[in-house]
Amino acid sequence: MADHPESNRARVYLDHAATSWPKFEPGVAAAERYVRCCGATAGRGAYHSALEAERWVQAARKALASLIGAPSLDSIALCTSGTHALNAGLWGVLKPGDHVLTTAMEHNSLLRPLHHWKELLGITVDIVPTDERGIANPLAARDFITPKTRLVALGHASNVTGAVQDLEAWSQVAQDAAALFMVDASQTLGYLPIDVRSMNIDVLAAAGHKGLRALHGTGFLYVGHDLQAGFRPLLFGGTGRASESLSGGQYWPNAVEVGNLNLPGIVSMAVAAEHFVESPAAVHQWQAVHQLLLQGLQEFPQVHLLGRSVAAASLGTPAASYIPVVSLSVDGWDVHDLASVLDDAFGIEVRAGWHCAALVHKGLVHAEQHAASNSGTLRLSTGASTTVEEVTVALRAFRGILKGE
Amino acid sequence: MADHPESNRARVYLDHAATSWPKFEPGVAAAERYVRCCGATAGRGAYHSALEAERWVQAARKALASLIGAPSLDSIALCTSGTHALNAGLWGVLKPGDHVLTTAMEHNSLLRPLHHWKELLGITVDIVPTDERGIANPLAARDFITPKTRLVALGHASNVTGAVQDLEAWSQVAQDAAALFMVDASQTLGYLPIDVRSMNIDVLAAAGHKGLRALHGTGFLYVGHDLQAGFRPLLFGGTGRASESLSGGQYWPNAVEVGNLNLPGIVSMAVAAEHFVESPAAVHQWQAVHQLLLQGLQEFPQVHLLGRSVAAASLGTPAASYIPVVSLSVDGWDVHDLASVLDDAFGIEVRAGWHCAALVHKGLVHAEQHAASNSGTLRLSTGASTTVEEVTVALRAFRGILKGE
Repeated sequence: MADHPESNRARVYLDHAATSWPKFEPGVAAAERYVRCCGATAGRGAYHSALEAERWVQAARKALASLIGAPSLDSIALCTSGTHALNAGLWGVLKPGDHVLTTAMEHNSLLRPLHHWKELLGITVDIVPTDERGIANPLAARDFITPKTRLVALGHASNVTGAVQDLEAWSQVAQDAAALFMVDASQTLGYLPIDVRSMNIDVLAAAGHKGLRALHGTGFLYVGHDLQAGFRPLLFGGTGRASESLSGGQYWPNAVEVGNLNLPGIVSMAVAAEHFVESPAAVHQWQAVHQLLLQGLQEFPQVHLLGRSVAAASLGTPAASYIPVVSLSVDGWDVHDLASVLDDAFGIEVRAGWHCAALVHKGLVHAEQHAASNSGTLRLSTGASTTVEEVTVALRAFRGILKGE
Repeated sequence: MADHPESNRARVYLDHAATSWPKFEPGVAAAERYVRCCGATAGRGAYHSALEAERWVQAARKALASLIGAPSLDSIALCTSGTHALNAGLWGVLKPGDHVLTTAMEHNSLLRPLHHWKELLGITVDIVPTDERGIANPLAARDFITPKTRLVALGHASNVTGAVQDLEAWSQVAQDAAALFMVDASQTLGYLPIDVRSMNIDVLAAAGHKGLRALHGTGFLYVGHDLQAGFRPLLFGGTGRASESLSGGQYWPNAVEVGNLNLPGIVSMAVAAEHFVESPAAVHQWQAVHQLLLQGLQEFPQVHLLGRSVAAASLGTPAASYIPVVSLSVDGWDVHDLASVLDDAFGIEVRAGWHCAALVHKGLVHAEQHAASNSGTLRLSTGASTTVEEVTVALRAFRGILKGE
């Protein structure tokens, strides 16, 4: 294959909601050391390098457990993505006859398994609509509860609008329904604190390569102790345990961790998670810079930020909070064209489209809907590494495009 | 977490059947460049870095397709491991009522999904026994064929004994039964040539991190054109296509590639596969050194190589060929103890146990069975990077342990 020459052009990466970049450098460096100096598989051999690999697996479990307040490190199963974690988690806990409650704000990695598994698993699913900001009202959820409701599953925040759901209220919904509470923290881990114990979360799935800044190919699934014994595996294979058994037993977390694990990714995830455990304030590192971007964008009358223009007071609900993700439409522009100009002329990398969330755009009722409905939205997502200089470049580009400055 | 100090002790890595180490350096270097200089997700954004990531995905498909003789690059789906590829492939093509034929030599990543999905998928499974060398006789397979036989699935070679199956004869079995032919090439890719067209292979699953020497977290699934439209996804999520659709459509290869892909791994796999495409002779690079190891081991009367002592003539079947994997038992030694001594005293890293293949040990009838049956076998697996010096160190260690030299 022809070499992919690295570009020397200026680059302002504003697609952190897809994956963060650059990654947390100590994690990258540790992964490189693992690849060059260790390289062994975990959980199989008993030789020094294999045990070193196993120590990294345990280190990742420990740091992730600590980061989300899990009661023990063995409640963490290492996954290959947030999508893998969500699929494994839903499949693992759902049983025939279960009713599931979720929301219209969800990513397709939560909506699609539920949609496709209705018949196969014998489950029913209801989707709670969202308000104009993209927040699903926990009070509205109560209308959907039935005696069969066994799982309330939703994302901590939207990957389209950035709106954060009220997890405490949703946790109460689940408790009142005597249902399990499952949270997709893929968009929030590393940007917001989360605690599975205080929020009574039974199942938590997350990607490792977004706010946590681990390498691609990483994610994890937390499952509470009382669900581990009956957890149903989605994938089967070698686990390093019970090799001589055809069934393989149903050991947790081996029920999820089948086959060779992505060790370089896991090493980077262990180091990145340890960073947040040791420096809890790092979770707020994105705030000032993202605020600067938001303020700047609001100065352009042609720019409409999805869900942000609706006052909480008019809805009679509390003010929304947001992760560093904003979706917008611009009068007179197709968002794909705008994304191209931003990239080609200014080196600003943003996403245009539907952002893998099938129901969000249908669910949002806002003044900008007509503009967004044709080709999706333009999404700008910053991260912990985004600088004031990068946001300044981005706002200058908007000024150049929209005002001809 | 405490640092994991890299050991300065001598290290002879002989567990290549678990994962190869060191990895193909140009692949590692390319992955590092990707992580530091690109870092974007593939198949989602349209900006420069996202397109660079997408080019790597296409480069991996192209090189892998070329390596296995696939008619088009879009027949390759990128997976997170050989286990993922096998699970996705079996789930993808099997339908209620199907009868599946496999062998007792298989890895648990093929046996266990079939075992667990019998009821869920409504399939039946028969397992063809193996001869004393661990080779399943294609003639014996014919007794198991029924009108419902729709899939013949087996591994190209055993991860325990190294014995290579006669794929051409098995392909004929599948054709005679009008069944699909599926091959697990996880243990052979990079060590043996394989061609899906000349062998009439309909589905091929493989790991990327073994003989191919890509990073962990890699694998792929080849599925022939006529099976792609009806292929049933095992995992669901965002694919970068049809984001606004709840079902997501059933596009191949997006039916397998859901969620964010492991780009650093894919980059390394693209470069490693290109190496084999450009230098087909590289597939034989392991032979001389492994032969040296085998000859050396045969000099110890206490050492019994599983399946190797049986003359083909006595079975009335052709001579077996092997990949660079050998399992053994040693008179007077528990294999786990022996593995510990080899590691602790000599820095030789080998595996003791059952090697994630539930039925192999039961199926093998050989003089050493009593020794192997208690705690598995000692497995030594070399790779393309194993040197004469390393094998010399290993044989000297065996001499020291067994002869006190």
